[in-house]
Amino acid sequence: MADQKLRIVALISIKQESREQLLPVFKTLIEETRKEEGNISYVLTNDVKDQNSFVFVEEWKSQEAINQHMASAHFVAFQGQIKDHLAAVPQVKILSEHF
Amino acid sequence: MADQKLRIVALISIKQESREQLLPVFKTLIEETRKEEGNISYVLTNDVKDQNSFVFVEEWKSQEAINQHMASAHFVAFQGQIKDHLAAVPQVKILSEHF
Repeated sequence: MADQKLRIVALISIKQESREQLLPVFKTLIEETRKEEGNISYVLTNDVKDQNSFVFVEEWKSQEAINQHMASAHFVAFQGQIKDHLAAVPQVKILSEHF
Repeated sequence: MADQKLRIVALISIKQESREQLLPVFKTLIEETRKEEGNISYVLTNDVKDQNSFVFVEEWKSQEAINQHMASAHFVAFQGQIKDHLAAVPQVKILSEHF
């Protein structure tokens, strides 16, 4: 299982007043994450009907790569920077490809 | 906007007892959808922590391509086949790429 490719979909809803301030925070996270050896792709998307609803759409080489990402300095820093700006608890799903 | 690439993330939770019966229904939908001219990619994923929680991770050439998909015979048939087997209302997000 260690080498099974996995996807993550992370739904993040932020406070309207925090949006402009958070965009560079998202950008830094993305730039640093794409440098990780275990990352395949990492895209931030925005709900076309709700500009405060974001979804990270991610591909990873393995569960170990995800573990390393979640323990990385840039991801830990991101969690600290975003926590007061969330409008809801994030929904994070780790996914195996079925078909 | 008509030619903007879009993504869809669709979270679908099904009844445990329906799983085996639904897998070929998902498979048919995927095979038919991948033939659509406006589809870029269409992958069914399964939550590693909950085998009854599925996420479709999709890429589309435009909103018009999504409209055509949602009106297609195979998608309409799929909706009819799945509705009695859902454990929750599906969460479907149409997404633009932000970064």
